[in-house]
Amino acid sequence: MVGVDAGGTSTRSVAVALDGRCLGVGRSGAANPVSSGIDRAMESISASVLAALGDVPPDAVGVVVLAAAGGANRPEVSGRLEAELAARGVNARVELVADGFAAFCSGTADGDGYALVAGTGAVALRVRSGDVARVADGLGWLLGDGGSGFWVGRRVVRSVLAELDGRGPATALTPALLAALGVRHRGQGSVVQGRAGIVAELLRLLYDEPTIALARFAGLAVAHPGDAVAEGILADAARELAATLGAVLEPGAPGPVVMGGGLLAASRDLRLGVIAALGDGLAGHGVVVVPDGLAGAAAMALRRVGVVVDDSVLSAIRAGLASG
Amino acid sequence: MVGVDAGGTSTRSVAVALDGRCLGVGRSGAANPVSSGIDRAMESISASVLAALGDVPPDAVGVVVLAAAGGANRPEVSGRLEAELAARGVNARVELVADGFAAFCSGTADGDGYALVAGTGAVALRVRSGDVARVADGLGWLLGDGGSGFWVGRRVVRSVLAELDGRGPATALTPALLAALGVRHRGQGSVVQGRAGIVAELLRLLYDEPTIALARFAGLAVAHPGDAVAEGILADAARELAATLGAVLEPGAPGPVVMGGGLLAASRDLRLGVIAALGDGLAGHGVVVVPDGLAGAAAMALRRVGVVVDDSVLSAIRAGLASG
Repeated sequence: MVGVDAGGTSTRSVAVALDGRCLGVGRSGAANPVSSGIDRAMESISASVLAALGDVPPDAVGVVVLAAAGGANRPEVSGRLEAELAARGVNARVELVADGFAAFCSGTADGDGYALVAGTGAVALRVRSGDVARVADGLGWLLGDGGSGFWVGRRVVRSVLAELDGRGPATALTPALLAALGVRHRGQGSVVQGRAGIVAELLRLLYDEPTIALARFAGLAVAHPGDAVAEGILADAARELAATLGAVLEPGAPGPVVMGGGLLAASRDLRLGVIAALGDGLAGHGVVVVPDGLAGAAAMALRRVGVVVDDSVLSAIRAGLASG
Repeated sequence: MVGVDAGGTSTRSVAVALDGRCLGVGRSGAANPVSSGIDRAMESISASVLAALGDVPPDAVGVVVLAAAGGANRPEVSGRLEAELAARGVNARVELVADGFAAFCSGTADGDGYALVAGTGAVALRVRSGDVARVADGLGWLLGDGGSGFWVGRRVVRSVLAELDGRGPATALTPALLAALGVRHRGQGSVVQGRAGIVAELLRLLYDEPTIALARFAGLAVAHPGDAVAEGILADAARELAATLGAVLEPGAPGPVVMGGGLLAASRDLRLGVIAALGDGLAGHGVVVVPDGLAGAAAMALRRVGVVVDDSVLSAIRAGLASG
């Protein structure tokens, strides 16, 4: 069986045996079928699946579970990937699942609980009896995804521009962003049409990119604890994510809270902020942190062929990924 | 002479005599040469200029001053409009100016002062000796324009979606936005994939539009004084705009503060919020409110042919517009 986590920045696949043992891991570029375009996504996903399979006989694959933002109920995507893999000699059934649900399954073998995922986007789920019962946010960069990587990254860039424009306080994010963009800050620098030349230069660079690419600057906020602007952004993000998780919490309903996604996995402060904001609302719920939905996608693939994925099987999958 | 204000939602032109007397007003659709595309903009602008001219002999026009966001120093735009007008029998020199500067000239005949404009975008200027000396913000919807119509409109929509998604407080903005979009709220309604069906419906409608179209919902915040969510959005917008105006204020340098643009002209609360946030920083500066840069564009057109535009000429232009 194969699990795939197709994200806005990279794609990873893992091939697992029926006992959860890792048979191989593959990695390729960005491949979210929604935001990267279907052709590029299919290429990327096929490449990572083949890399994960290595010497595994292609006819032993059976099921591929593909986790992606905006996943689930998109038969045109799963059909397309089945055809793509068949053309490369891999005959398998492909199932598309929402990345949030895959993240949940990465963190627990339980059928009940909650997931909060903040990667490029942000979404929370309530899971009941192995199925998604309630979703909050995940509404995309323009109208939702509060506290996501895009949300934080955009705030980072806006804060830097506000400083350079004389509208906002000085922040360590400014030299960090300029370094990330390879732009040199020339002190006071030139003034063009009443504005610092460096502002115009940043605008040109940043408006030239896909909007969603701002998400990659979220890490700058995480990397600058102690900077008041960075801390303010992450504190606001924690409030947004707490509201999102709070919307799916059901008083008295049990189960762990799985926290995942690139941003939330990277920032302990952000996770603690969410937990603090929800206070007693999280009492009695254990919190599990996962990097992504890769282990969960593999676990779901095993379940599709009848394997009972308990804690020991899930641990085997996770151990294989951690060492691979 | 003709002045034109080309905005994200509509275009207005005014033809004036050398004493500022209004000879005619024309109006047409959206025509920002930057955001609407050049072809559509040129058509729209030409139509409004011809409507303003009416019976004025086309060879008496002389100069057309065109105010637009992101204006100034775009010779390809002014050249294109000159050709377009010539094809319609109007031989005139066209000059493109920034809409913020035109708004300043709508509000005062002084050569020194400040402008704060919040329409679809937001920008502040310091004017010295009749020229723009310093600009703050105006950096566009994604990376700047804090407190602008887009900024407020996006917050309105996000707040409504947060309520419908169970993440945010109830607000009067919700029924107002649903009515504006012609969407009927069916009480609890259907749940699709763990989410209220109405959320999916709104996403479909709103992601289908140009991003910048969210600016049209800013008026909903203005129209709901007393609603805590609407007031919170406008209070935050006031802080953003105060920081923008504050960035161009020069201690001890005199001159009025002209406030304009659709959002700022429409909301007294927003203007008062900006003034309160800046406190003593505005002491000694008079505040003038203007709807847009139309009178200012006409004043600039007169100046280009040597007319000294003093308070009485500017008053004549404004009076003509107010009655037309």
